[in-house]
Order: sequence, then structure tokens, then C-alpha cells
Amino acid sequence: MSFRDECGVFGIYGHPEAANLVYLGLYALQHRGQESAGIVSSDGTQIFQSVGMGQVADVFPPDSLKRLKGSAAAGHVRYSTAGSSHVLNAQPIHISYHSGEIAVAHNGNLINAARLRFELERQGSIFQSTSDTEVILHLIARSPYPDLEDAITDALKQVEGAYSLVFLTRDRVVAVRDPRGFRPLSLGQVEGAWCVASESCAFDLIGARFVRDVAPGEMVVIDANGVRSLTPFPQAPVSQCVFEYVYFARPDSFLFGQGVQSVRKRMGARLAEEHPVAADIVVPVPDSGVYAALGYAEKSGIPFEMGLVRNHYVGRTFIEPKQSIRHFGVKVKLNPVRDLLAGKKVVLVDDSIVRGTTSRKIVSMIKEAGAKEVHVRISCPPTVGPCYYGVDTPNRSELIASSHSIDEIRKYIRASSLGYLSLEGMKAAVGETTGPAAGAGDPSRFCNACYTLNYPVPLSDDELAQLPLFQKAKR
Amino acid sequence: MSFRDECGVFGIYGHPEAANLVYLGLYALQHRGQESAGIVSSDGTQIFQSVGMGQVADVFPPDSLKRLKGSAAAGHVRYSTAGSSHVLNAQPIHISYHSGEIAVAHNGNLINAARLRFELERQGSIFQSTSDTEVILHLIARSPYPDLEDAITDALKQVEGAYSLVFLTRDRVVAVRDPRGFRPLSLGQVEGAWCVASESCAFDLIGARFVRDVAPGEMVVIDANGVRSLTPFPQAPVSQCVFEYVYFARPDSFLFGQGVQSVRKRMGARLAEEHPVAADIVVPVPDSGVYAALGYAEKSGIPFEMGLVRNHYVGRTFIEPKQSIRHFGVKVKLNPVRDLLAGKKVVLVDDSIVRGTTSRKIVSMIKEAGAKEVHVRISCPPTVGPCYYGVDTPNRSELIASSHSIDEIRKYIRASSLGYLSLEGMKAAVGETTGPAAGAGDPSRFCNACYTLNYPVPLSDDELAQLPLFQKAKR
Amino acid sequence: MSFRDECGVFGIYGHPEAANLVYLGLYALQHRGQESAGIVSSDGTQIFQSVGMGQVADVFPPDSLKRLKGSAAAGHVRYSTAGSSHVLNAQPIHISYHSGEIAVAHNGNLINAARLRFELERQGSIFQSTSDTEVILHLIARSPYPDLEDAITDALKQVEGAYSLVFLTRDRVVAVRDPRGFRPLSLGQVEGAWCVASESCAFDLIGARFVRDVAPGEMVVIDANGVRSLTPFPQAPVSQCVFEYVYFARPDSFLFGQGVQSVRKRMGARLAEEHPVAADIVVPVPDSGVYAALGYAEKSGIPFEMGLVRNHYVGRTFIEPKQSIRHFGVKVKLNPVRDLLAGKKVVLVDDSIVRGTTSRKIVSMIKEAGAKEVHVRISCPPTVGPCYYGVDTPNRSELIASSHSIDEIRKYIRASSLGYLSLEGMKAAVGETTGPAAGAGDPSRFCNACYTLNYPVPLSDDELAQLPLFQKAKR
Amino acid sequence: MSFRDECGVFGIYGHPEAANLVYLGLYALQHRGQESAGIVSSDGTQIFQSVGMGQVADVFPPDSLKRLKGSAAAGHVRYSTAGSSHVLNAQPIHISYHSGEIAVAHNGNLINAARLRFELERQGSIFQSTSDTEVILHLIARSPYPDLEDAITDALKQVEGAYSLVFLTRDRVVAVRDPRGFRPLSLGQVEGAWCVASESCAFDLIGARFVRDVAPGEMVVIDANGVRSLTPFPQAPVSQCVFEYVYFARPDSFLFGQGVQSVRKRMGARLAEEHPVAADIVVPVPDSGVYAALGYAEKSGIPFEMGLVRNHYVGRTFIEPKQSIRHFGVKVKLNPVRDLLAGKKVVLVDDSIVRGTTSRKIVSMIKEAGAKEVHVRISCPPTVGPCYYGVDTPNRSELIASSHSIDEIRKYIRASSLGYLSLEGMKAAVGETTGPAAGAGDPSRFCNACYTLNYPVPLSDDELAQLPLFQKAKR
Repeated sequence: MSFRDECGVFGIYGHPEAANLVYLGLYALQHRGQESAGIVSSDGTQIFQSVGMGQVADVFPPDSLKRLKGSAAAGHVRYSTAGSSHVLNAQPIHISYHSGEIAVAHNGNLINAARLRFELERQGSIFQSTSDTEVILHLIARSPYPDLEDAITDALKQVEGAYSLVFLTRDRVVAVRDPRGFRPLSLGQVEGAWCVASESCAFDLIGARFVRDVAPGEMVVIDANGVRSLTPFPQAPVSQCVFEYVYFARPDSFLFGQGVQSVRKRMGARLAEEHPVAADIVVPVPDSGVYAALGYAEKSGIPFEMGLVRNHYVGRTFIEPKQSIRHFGVKVKLNPVRDLLAGKKVVLVDDSIVRGTTSRKIVSMIKEAGAKEVHVRISCPPTVGPCYYGVDTPNRSELIASSHSIDEIRKYIRASSLGYLSLEGMKAAVGETTGPAAGAGDPSRFCNACYTLNYPVPLSDDELAQLPLFQKAKR
Repeated sequence: MSFRDECGVFGIYGHPEAANLVYLGLYALQHRGQESAGIVSSDGTQIFQSVGMGQVADVFPPDSLKRLKGSAAAGHVRYSTAGSSHVLNAQPIHISYHSGEIAVAHNGNLINAARLRFELERQGSIFQSTSDTEVILHLIARSPYPDLEDAITDALKQVEGAYSLVFLTRDRVVAVRDPRGFRPLSLGQVEGAWCVASESCAFDLIGARFVRDVAPGEMVVIDANGVRSLTPFPQAPVSQCVFEYVYFARPDSFLFGQGVQSVRKRMGARLAEEHPVAADIVVPVPDSGVYAALGYAEKSGIPFEMGLVRNHYVGRTFIEPKQSIRHFGVKVKLNPVRDLLAGKKVVLVDDSIVRGTTSRKIVSMIKEAGAKEVHVRISCPPTVGPCYYGVDTPNRSELIASSHSIDEIRKYIRASSLGYLSLEGMKAAVGETTGPAAGAGDPSRFCNACYTLNYPVPLSDDELAQLPLFQKAKR
Repeated sequence: MSFRDECGVFGIYGHPEAANLVYLGLYALQHRGQESAGIVSSDGTQIFQSVGMGQVADVFPPDSLKRLKGSAAAGHVRYSTAGSSHVLNAQPIHISYHSGEIAVAHNGNLINAARLRFELERQGSIFQSTSDTEVILHLIARSPYPDLEDAITDALKQVEGAYSLVFLTRDRVVAVRDPRGFRPLSLGQVEGAWCVASESCAFDLIGARFVRDVAPGEMVVIDANGVRSLTPFPQAPVSQCVFEYVYFARPDSFLFGQGVQSVRKRMGARLAEEHPVAADIVVPVPDSGVYAALGYAEKSGIPFEMGLVRNHYVGRTFIEPKQSIRHFGVKVKLNPVRDLLAGKKVVLVDDSIVRGTTSRKIVSMIKEAGAKEVHVRISCPPTVGPCYYGVDTPNRSELIASSHSIDEIRKYIRASSLGYLSLEGMKAAVGETTGPAAGAGDPSRFCNACYTLNYPVPLSDDELAQLPLFQKAKR
Repeated sequence: MSFRDECGVFGIYGHPEAANLVYLGLYALQHRGQESAGIVSSDGTQIFQSVGMGQVADVFPPDSLKRLKGSAAAGHVRYSTAGSSHVLNAQPIHISYHSGEIAVAHNGNLINAARLRFELERQGSIFQSTSDTEVILHLIARSPYPDLEDAITDALKQVEGAYSLVFLTRDRVVAVRDPRGFRPLSLGQVEGAWCVASESCAFDLIGARFVRDVAPGEMVVIDANGVRSLTPFPQAPVSQCVFEYVYFARPDSFLFGQGVQSVRKRMGARLAEEHPVAADIVVPVPDSGVYAALGYAEKSGIPFEMGLVRNHYVGRTFIEPKQSIRHFGVKVKLNPVRDLLAGKKVVLVDDSIVRGTTSRKIVSMIKEAGAKEVHVRISCPPTVGPCYYGVDTPNRSELIASSHSIDEIRKYIRASSLGYLSLEGMKAAVGETTGPAAGAGDPSRFCNACYTLNYPVPLSDDELAQLPLFQKAKR
């Protein structure tokens, strides 16, 4: 529960209230980023832009959409970190270049951005943000291909890493998903207009119909002639982010060919098979652990109980008293239900242990509420490596599982027992698909590098060293 | 899920960071009111006040507590309605009178406030708010008793209705719960300091120990000499609000002698006994229906599923497109998990049906997600009357159950079947207490007027007519 | 330039855009108070209120006037001091009492407010602000007279001190000026509607015609029947505030029967006669010293020069560097024109010296800009006493002239010479009226207590002691 | 009074509180731009940036300067127009390029920016703002010269038009003024640190000493080794903006070798000689007309009077009533002093007539206040052409003098007579310098294109056509 996704994107073409639907789409994707939000629109003649810091409802007060005219629009929500939080990093980025205006919203992370940027700077390019997305725009502007789709293709052939992109120009929307398909991107339809979104839950809110995933390596062009699908990139092994299933995506989204909650439940069920325990109740860490806990409970036959209550009125900041309050950081969000826990042997289901500090506090809180035993069950394997493809993870050295055995972790978090879902178990849970989704869960189609260190697009030493540069340049 | 509680209160005496703990206490009580928040404090010499519109985090930015000096403090969160939303109605109210300064925070509603106000105005009193609470302060100021506790007693003997009050003066905190105990109030202790709160969940956050409920009709005085308990009022039948169990209180609170979630689960279990149905899954309307749904699922043996996902990033306002989106009002908060619901016979568990419009939208949404049948189950009896004791309910004419049969409601909301928990069932669920809580759930100790129209403190025709006056005077 | 007036008031009856005209009237009166602003309006049925901290433009954003319905309205701007700055002290105060709703806006200060408040509290009244204005409302509410005008008269007969009041009820506007007429109040007319304002400049902005001053001791009632004038109070010697002429009022206002700028110019001319000096240029301290300096220059024949430039973009707060900047406090507002001042003998004309610290900085600044000599001329006598009738003055002990000779002050402010206008000179300047204004300047009709200590309404020792109480109670 | 300057710039190197002094410098330059404000600073390792919309006091609340670390800093204030008001156009612009980080603040306007931009885009550059300043940064980044000063020189040799620039890099501040010296730029010193500013009034506020003007075509480099002066550009005829004297610059600034107020007074005196009239009083349109009016009054012997009062509390927006108020737009800022004007023959002195609408309202207002005659005198020649060098002027077609004779204008504004200062008179007034300033006012050193259409750097038809493009691209 400590990872943060990079971003969410949304685009639409051919709707009289384009900006308003983007606004609602971003609302539904708010869980993918709360630092900044932005919308661009086109009325066929020019592009309008509005971006700002904060959540969608803060950035766009009533009446603010009026100036975002036109029937095509794209939007972006961005994650929050302390360091490079700056309005100049907010997206969509909007530029003008030799062929006119273009704007782009990006979910993902390029691993060779620093090298490309170095090269572009060497050729005289200037950079105004620390975002890797700016690199893509430079490459398009420098592409020798006059046609937009060709130029985008040319640019993206030079970048490596993860990208689900929505471009907006004067007269079209272009959506692209990288050949490995790291991050999700879906295609929908609403009243004759076509739209794309990071997750299908955005379609639900605006009353759009989910049509299909944009395929890995696919470019979808939406304009006055309708939708065209191109596959301009050389084929590559697909490596979709399994962590979208584990934690990121909303449970009501249909992603990578499956319903997210179904996969989570199957992970919980597998976890029950792999790490059974004689206990009285199964308790999730809400909200992310709920579905895995349901799967665990169902499979194990141990009753499911909401033994932790989440306070949803939590703001960004607190005035904490000087006199310390035990487990304060966790307590403002979570409170144990004493009545339910007292005297019980508890199976506590969560989706991950990152640094271990939060888990340690939660276990203590539950024990102080009277639980006799707390058996921690994690619905994925130990997180041993950071993500380079669009997930904001701590450094490897901060990941407790990168340097500690499971038993050491268990001791640190003071759990009665600790069980992680095995890699094989996770693969099996993802792969148990039937009916129309059959094959969608093929384990070979997923990236699980944060559990295995098998990075599908390996980074050179240089790239590893340069990664932090992007976080430093602008403050 | 459409009722709104009036308020939450918190008070503390004898802690070096009094205002900060009140701030956190209000944070935990935020579900009881989001319109305004306020804190008063005393440093033994004078009283400091800070109130504002909005949630606690908005009203109190970093550093804002510094001027709320002293080791005693009290606070208040207030519910939100469009009409009389005004900072001059925010609490705690702070006045000066012949004996010095006094401030008060009030949860509840006085039914004879209009008559008392008329009488006080006749005697030359002026009113600056539309709050019934101001009446109490006038009565104290006009009381012939020089001693504070006597004056408060004298004042409260004249009022009728519901009140859980926290007074702050220069040198003490006085907490009072009306003789019928309509609204909750609890006593806690933290590091030698005593505190009171509407619900025990506020104690949990600040690391205080729950000591006991303040008894109906009890006055608790906290000052430099510690805690004193007085019972200055004539005894009356206790009539605690059963709707705190059904909906209002946080599930992690211990209230009226029982854990809230336990009662909710028992209500769900009774509901399963009274209204069984052959179905595939039990789905709660989150968040309030979760525990009753768990009880229903456990008792019925039908699997519990989180088939509706709540978007917790929802702000207060939306920019809705002109072109209408089906079920928009409900959809921004709730989204069905298509995957879970498709082809299923669903038991949908909620805590109440007020006007019926929301339920109708939810049932439709679930059907559109593919459910074959939707059997609605409500964890309390039909709501036939408004509350006059501190809950913000619609007029009787707006309550669908006041004028429609259950079958008519079923048709309106388009449910496959509809079952309400019976009054007897509710009483039984509340009363099934054992161990230390034995007797706490005695059904005779609860007000269920909104289900039965048996108002424990009846209103005269005049009082009924005057009630709306309090909502009108100030804008 | 360090005094601050208490307030400005405005009222109108019978105009379809009443609240909007009040808003503009307050805009024109903004110089009389920048701490808070407020408007009340009546649509004949009920009273609407909106008050807030800050200047008029901040308190009333676009669209904010829409809810202030009706064709009658009143408004208030309030001065700023650090201590009791609180929205609960903002006016107009709006209450309900036995006869309905009433609101009031007050410019002035009651000297027996503490005693009346003590008495009212003894009788059971409660106070929510530290404003003396609240006392008036209590007295009205407790008056035995059923008729509004009688009750107001009854109440005001009990108070002593300065008041220009605008009351608004459901169906009328009542304006009252105390019998001594300390503070100004004028009557105007616009498109058939009648209005009252602290100064006539407010009429100019809304296109209203100045009709006449409200007379000392007059009550003007404006309702559906037009305007009625009552004189319900026993006659008293008139004592209009001469400092309105010296500093407070806008120079474009017509006040107490004369144009403000004309009086200021005559003061400057007298000053030239009383304190001539061989100098090169006459320089005002802008903006308040400009007209007196023009009078001085014209009479003396010495050229007038704008040798100090005022920065009008100055906000309320500064981020001052730690490393001190000489004369910083004065410099952010005033900058000397080096070119004009270098090598010159300068007559510097200001309207007052309060503590002396600001004058000292200005003199130094002008010398550092190259002036050979700086002869300070003040367009009124030395300020030796505080005002108790509505002007926010420092304590007597802080007034440099209360304990220092003119030569000591001269030395302290480092002036080459220092001359104050004599009392006789001031009286003569005020009294030099001809034509229609003949007699308006009769010196016996003015209060000059801050120069003479001859307080027209003397304060008892008790009252002197109690004055600060009003500043303390609420924070 | 309807022109608006483009911008103000400030830079400092070698002061421990660099950002704070820039903040104050911008405060003093606020009259040069109120739309946006920004500061960049360097601690020798990296550059920090903070920009925002609004005035300096709004953009930089207390504590906001803390993160702008380091002993070198630069800042910018930008003018306000409705169209392209966007935070992405705020300056200083901060980029990174092959040689590291660089930021720039720009006052002026490039006339070949569109052509250069077209060329740069053709080469693959992307643009994120509509600011011509971004072109300069691209040229620097593409320059083949590795040394910073060489690269800046190389870039600036390609641009044409007006620029006073302050660059900040990790280790130095570079200030450049274009060879024609259109816009002002001065050098100062404070406690061993060197600073540059658009006007000397900024030095006064921070206690810096004015050292000298940065010369036309000069590059000043300030770093750890002190100050170096370079003159890297081919010499060009100097054409300083005469309108800085007429209107823009603060009267207390020393600019282009002279005190601004002195020039203004001489213009007024010449105006009296050229257009004498038998009148009673000379009245300025405040604040900009004050010094010319003083000069007119002194020369003509007609008394100077402040017959119009300016309301300095005017905010950006008003809620105007639907029912129209005569001359409303002017009245909220200016009010006539009836007493002074009634029955008088008035000479009204202003600095320019742009569209004529404002002058027409002012003349009417003064007549309605009772003036018998209103003789308008303008302290410069008729404005017949727009400025292409950094002043925000209306299109030529909107300039009343571009298509109307003086008598037609007189009739339109309803003046009794109308006199403009002649071109020769303006030149003479500027040139009447003696002592140390001798020669500074050489008329050949000034641009007066807006009065003569003699544009010193002529624009091709293409450039004229492309100018508006910069205003369109981003919204």
C-alpha cells in the first residue's frame, strides 16, 4: 500500500462535451495520481490547455471547463512525490513545433530518457521539465517524417521502456501503447465518440462502452474518419505489469483481459492454499487488501471480517502533537475494531510489504486491540526490486525483502507467522482464465521484475546511474 | 445512506496539547459533520476560539492551532445542509455573560427551542444564529443560580429533546448528556487528562483509553480537582438512538455499551433469517452496508462479495455534462464490478431506503452490469417518520415508506424482491448481548421513532410548526 | 498618517440593485476600514447577510451579491487592528428579537458601553462579540416601546459617545447620528431611492446626488412612504470630529458642510503664515499631506513639488530580509525623488506626528537624498490625547506630543525646524466659510479633544479603566 | 494611462539573501507588470524556481522564499492582458541544455521572433510558451560557442528588437541591454553585492547604490570575480524609449541619465508655452499626469490643484450593477473634487490619449462637477502608431490619433480646447540637460516611433503579419 502509480490518461474525439468527459474520466482515474491534473482540448483550430497542482476537483472548479472548447480532448493525472512536485511538470504537455500544436499525456517511464536527452541537448534542444515525456516531443519535432503518425512512430522507436500515450493535435487523437504493453490502455465508445483510458472504470462513469484493450505495440488514430489501428513497431514479448492486478488498478476495472477483482480473489485463494493457518478470522488491510482477503476466506473457510476501519476523511497533512502518539501515522487512516479482534487468531491480508514499517505498526495495533495471534499473508511474492517502468517505488535498499529473509521480516513486523504468495502461485492466479478471457492471463505475458529482478528491458549501468537525474533538475 | 448526523463533539481538560488533541478527535469524528468545524481552548485566564466552514483539515491549516492556547479545549464538527450553511452557525459558540466567558459544543436537537426562544425574545434576548444551542446559553445567563453547574442544570431542566453537550469555561470542562440519552457521549483518559467524545473512535486516534459512556442524565465536571459525576436531572426512560447502530456511528466505535459493528452484523444475520432468498452472492452498498451484509452472508451461507466499488476521491461538487449520463449522481460514488455481478442472483444489503431514488439507481446499475436478479435487503424497518432529536432527515412526505407499501417500494426501485428487518428483529439484534455488555441492548432503552412514530418526547402541534423556523432566520 | 478610522457605513432603500449599490458605496469608503466588510439586505420578507475579513473586493467575489436579495440594504467596512481581528466582530451585526430581524452598521464608539454591558449581563444578556454595537441591539430588544423608532430612541438615550448608525429591518432603513454629531453621515438620492453614507464620495461613485448632512441628533427613517426626519434626542452641543478634516475623510468628500480639500488647503495656508521659512520647495507626505502642502505653497510662494513617491502596490505583508535595510518600514511605501531634493531646503508638510518614529525615518530619508534642510510643518496642533469617539489612536503614553516639547520632538525627528498649526489657526481655517457653507465651520461645533484634552463627553475613571476590556474578550 | 509596459527585471549576485532582495526589487517594479511574478535563485549547484500568476505579494506568501536558496537570484514581473495570461508564460523561464541550467528574465520585444521561431521549429525545436524569450534560449542552446558569454552573444546577434535581459546560471548573473537600448537597465551595488534592475527605484528600496546605467549594447557579467563589462555587439544608433519618460517609469527613478520627474516637469512647462490658455486652475489626471501638470502650472503661473482624487483601493474586478452608472469605468478610479472645480476654467493635464474613450469620460465628469471650461493638455505628441519594442499598445486602428485630426479628437472628448506637446517640444524637454546629465537627453538617442512612425528597427510585412501569432498559440 505504499507504492504509487505514475499516472492516468484519458482521451476522447468527437464529442460535443469532450473536456467535460475527460474531466470525469480523470475523476475515475484519480487513484492513479493526485499531485496534478490537466486537460487539453481542440476545437479544430487551436489547442486549449489547463493544468494545475492538486486533485481534479481542486484544479477544475465550476465553470473552469468553459474555456476548454472543442470536441476533442485529452487529460492526465499525476502521482505525488515531495521532490519534483512542480506545476511545470504537470501534464498534458502542450507545445508547438514545425507542424503545429501537439499535446501529450503519458503513463509510464522511459529508461533511456537520460541518454536521449543528453543527445538532444547536445544537438541544441532545451528542456523545461524533468519529465521524460518531453523527450518524446523533441523526437517528434526532430523526426524527418512529415506525417504525424510516422513522426510519432519514428520518435517512439527510439525510446525504450513503458508508455501508454495519448496525443492531441488540432484534428485528431492518437493513442499508443508500447510494444511490451507495460501499462494498460483501453478503448471505449460513447454516443458515437471514441475514447481511450488507462482503466475501464473511467468508461463506466461517463457511460461509455468498453470496446477492447489497446494492444501492446498498437497505435490507435481517432479523427473525423473514425478509428484506425496501426501496428508500426517491431513485435516484442509482451510484459504487462502484474502489479496493476496486485495493487494499482481499481478493482472494478477490466484490465489486460480480466476483471481486476477476480484476479485478486484468486491470488487470495492461492495464498490460502499455500499458507494455511488455524485462525478465527480473516481481516484485510483496507481498501487494497479486501479482495485477496475475500479469496483467502472463501478458500480457507475462515470467516471474513472488516477488523480494520479506514477513515476516508484523511487529508494530506496533519497537525501532529509534539507528544508522540503510538502508531500515529497508521492510526489516522486505520483503526482496529476492538470488539471483533479481541481474543482472536487473526489472518491479516495485505497486498505488499515495502519497507516493513507500516506493517509493523498495523500488527502492533491489532495486537493491542486484543488479538491473540496475527498471521500476516501477502498476496504476492516478496518485493525485491524497484520498478523502472512507471511505478514509483523506493530504492532497492529500502525494500525490506531485498536484504532480509522472510523470517527476519516476520520478526521485524512482529507477526505470529508470515506468508507470501509464491511466484508460481501468482502466475497461476493470473493465468486461471476461462471463457472469453482464456489466455489473457498467460504468465509469460507479464512483467514481474519487482519480484524476480528479471527486468524485461534491462538497464545499462549508465541508465541506472542517470535515472535519478530526472528527479533532480527542477525544483 | 442519505441521512446526516447533526454533529460530533469532543472535550479535554488537563493536557498540555489540548487543542491539538481536540483537532485529532474531530478528525476521527469527521463522519458526523463536514460543514463546519471549530475549537475553543482555555489557558485558565481566557478563552480562544477558531471556527470555520469546511472539514477539519481545511479549517485548521498547519500552525493554526498555535493561538489556541491552554490545557483545556473543546471542539465541534457540524453537518452540512445547503440552507442554513453559515459560519455564524458554526460551533463551539463562545459568549461572555455575567460570570465570565463560556463556550459550548452541542450534538442533538431541542424540540422546544422555538418556544423558549420566543419567550426569551419576549424578555429582551437577542439571537445571532438559528441554532437551538444559543437558547441554552441564554438560559444559563438568565439563571438565578450563581454556581456554574447549578446554572447549567437550571437551564437544561427547561429544555426538551436531545443534547450531548461539552461546555468550556476558563477553568473547567462540563459534559452533559440528556436524561433520555438520545445521542452518545463517552468518557476517556489519556496521560492523566480526561476527555469526552461523541464516539470512542476519537479516543483511539489520540491514544486515549475508553473509560465508560457518560450516562443518560449525567453531568461530568472536569477541572483541576479531577472528575466529578453529578445526576442533577429527574430520571427519565432512556431512549438511545438506534440509528446510531444502523448507520451513523463508525463501526469501530463502542457505543451505548456495545461495539457498533457487532450490532450491525447481528442485524444482517436476523435479516437473513427473516428474508432468505436463493441467491449467488451478497453485495453491500459500501461503506455503510458492509457489516450487515457480512452478517447476512454468514448466516445465509451465501458468499459475500464487494460487487460495488466506492470512489473515495469524490469531492463536494462536479461539473456535470449537459448531456445526461445515466445514474450519474450515484455513479460518481459507486461503480459495479461487472465481472462479479454478471449472470448472478444478487442480495443487495443497504442500511436504509429514504426517498427511494438512490436505491432505484443502484438496482438499475447492478442490473445493467448483468445481474439476473437483485434482491434488496434493508438492515432496519421501513423509515416512516423524521427524527426530531438530532438527525437531519427529510420531511415525512419525502420518506417513501411513509406512504407506500413495501411492494410499491419494491416496484419503484425495480428490485426482484425487497425485505426490511422487522422491528422485532431489530430489537432482538440490538438486545443479543452477553458478557460485560449484557443488558446494554435492552430494547426498551432505545428510540426507534423513525420506524414506529412512537416519539419518546412528543411534539406539540406548535412545536412541529415552529421547527422549520430555526432553519429560516439566517442565511 | 498612523491613525485609523473605525468604520464606514452605507444604507439604501428602494432600489432594485440595493446590495450592488451598497457594495460600490463601501468601495468608495474603503479608506475608512480594510479589516472586514459586510452587507445585509432585505427583500421585504427576510434579511440576508454576508460578512467577511478583508477588503470589499476580497469579501465579495463576482456573483457573491446574488444571494443578497431585495431593494433595501446596508453595509459596513471596519478598520484593522491585530488584536481583535475576528470575523465575529465584522458588521453589520444581524440578530433576531421579539419584533423580528434587525441589522445594524455602526461608525463611532460608545464610552459607556462597558458599564451598559455589565448591567445587561447582570440582567442575563449574553454577548458574542467585543463590539460596543452589540450593546445597542440588546437595549433595543429590551426596550418597552413596541414601535421600532421609539425602541431605537429609547436605546440610544442610554448610550453615550459617538455613533453614526444605519439600521436595516424587513421593511425600512433607519439612520441615526448622535446628538453631538461626532462622526459624519450624509443623505443622498439616486433614481428615486434614498441612501445614507459616511461620506459623500460614496454617492459620487453610484451616481447619487448629495442632498444634505444628516443633522446631529437626527433620525432619518426611509421606507415605502419615503423619508421622514425625527429629532428624538435632547439637544446637545455639537462636537464634530475635526480630525475628519485633518486626515480621515477623502479630500473629494463634502463633510460637515464643507469640501474636505478646501479646509485642508486653508490649514496649509494658515500654517504658512504661522511658520514661514526660507526654503526652496514644499513637499507633501503623500497622499494625506498633499492638500495642506498645496495651501502652504500657494500662500508662501514656495514651489510645490512631489518629492516623495508613494508605491500603491504595497500589500499587507512583506518578507523582510534578516539583514536590516535602513528605514525599511517607511521605504516600502515612500521613496524620495533624489533629483528634486538634492541640495534643496525642503518644507515637508504632513498631517500629524503620532509616535514620531515614522516622521524621523522620512526626514532621514529626505536628508540622505541630498536635502540641505528639512523643515517639518504639521497641519494641525500637537496630538496630546487619544480619541474615545471612534478613532483608533495609540495610548496617551505613546503620543510623543503628550510628554515632549515641540523642540524635543524636532530633535527626535531630526528636523531643521518644526512647526505645528496652532489651535487658533486650525479653528480659523475650519471657520473661513462663505456663501452657502457660511457658519458650517463655526469652531464651537467641533471636537478637538485630541489637541486640547477638552473631551466633550467626559469619561469617568471607571470608563477609562473599562475601555480596554472590549478589546480583550474575544480572540 | 492605458498603455502597459511589458515587464520589469531584477538580478543580484553575491548576497546571502539574494532571493529576498529580488523579491523587494520586484515589489518596487510592480508598476511594470502585475500579471505574473517569478524568482529563480542559484546556490552554486542548482537553480531553484518559483513563478505564479498575480502580484508579487500574492505569488510569494510568507515563508515562500525559503526554498529559493543561494546567493544569486533573478526575478521578473509581467504585464497583464486577458488573452495569453497563463502561468506557462510567466518568467523567469528556466531550462536545462547541454551546458547545464540557465534561467532568463526579459523586458522588451523581439520583432523577428516569429521568423526565428519558424526557422528553429523547422530544425526540430519545440516551443512551450508564446513568449519570444523562449527563442533566445533555443538560440543559446544551439550556439556552437561553448563559452556562456559567447553563446549569449551569438544568440543575441540573431535577434532584432528590444531586450533588457537578466540571465542566471549556476555560477553567474549576466545582464544584457540591446544595442539600441530600447528598454532601461541599471547597475547597482549593495553591501559588496552587485545588482541590476529595470529602474533605479528598485535599488532605493533595498538600500542599494545606483552605480550607472547598463549601456546600450553592453553585457555585464557578475560572478565570483566581480563585475566585467563586455561590448560584444556591433554599434547601432541608440533609440531609448521616450515613453518611459512620458508615462512608464516611476517618477522617482533615474533613467537614461536623467531623473524621470524632471523630464516630466519640463514637458509640462513646454506644453504651457506651446498651448497657453487663460484658465483658473491646472488639474492633473492622477497619478501619471501630476509632474507634467506641475510643470505646466509653474510655467503658466496658473495654480495647480488636485481636482481629481484617485481611489487606490481599486481591485481588478467589480460587480457592476445592471442599471448603468454614468462614466462608471472611470469613476471607480477617479472622482472629481466638486468644490475645487465648480465654476472654474480648468486645464486638464494627462500623459496621453489612446482610444479617446477615457478622456471623454473624464472631461464629462469634470464638467458635471461644475467646471466652466475644460482645456485638455497632453504632455507628448499624438500617439499614431503602436510600439513593437516592448510596450503593450492597441492596434493602430484603435489609436484615435492615427485617423483623426486634433480638432476631431477635441470634439470627440468634448474638450473646450486640446493641445498636444509638439515633437520638437518633447525633444527639447528631454534634451534640456545640464551638469552631470548633460548630453543624456540628446534627442537623437530616443525612439519616438509611436509619435512619428519612424521605427528605428523596421518590420517587414511578414514580421508585421506574424506578430499576432505569438499571442495566439497558447491559452
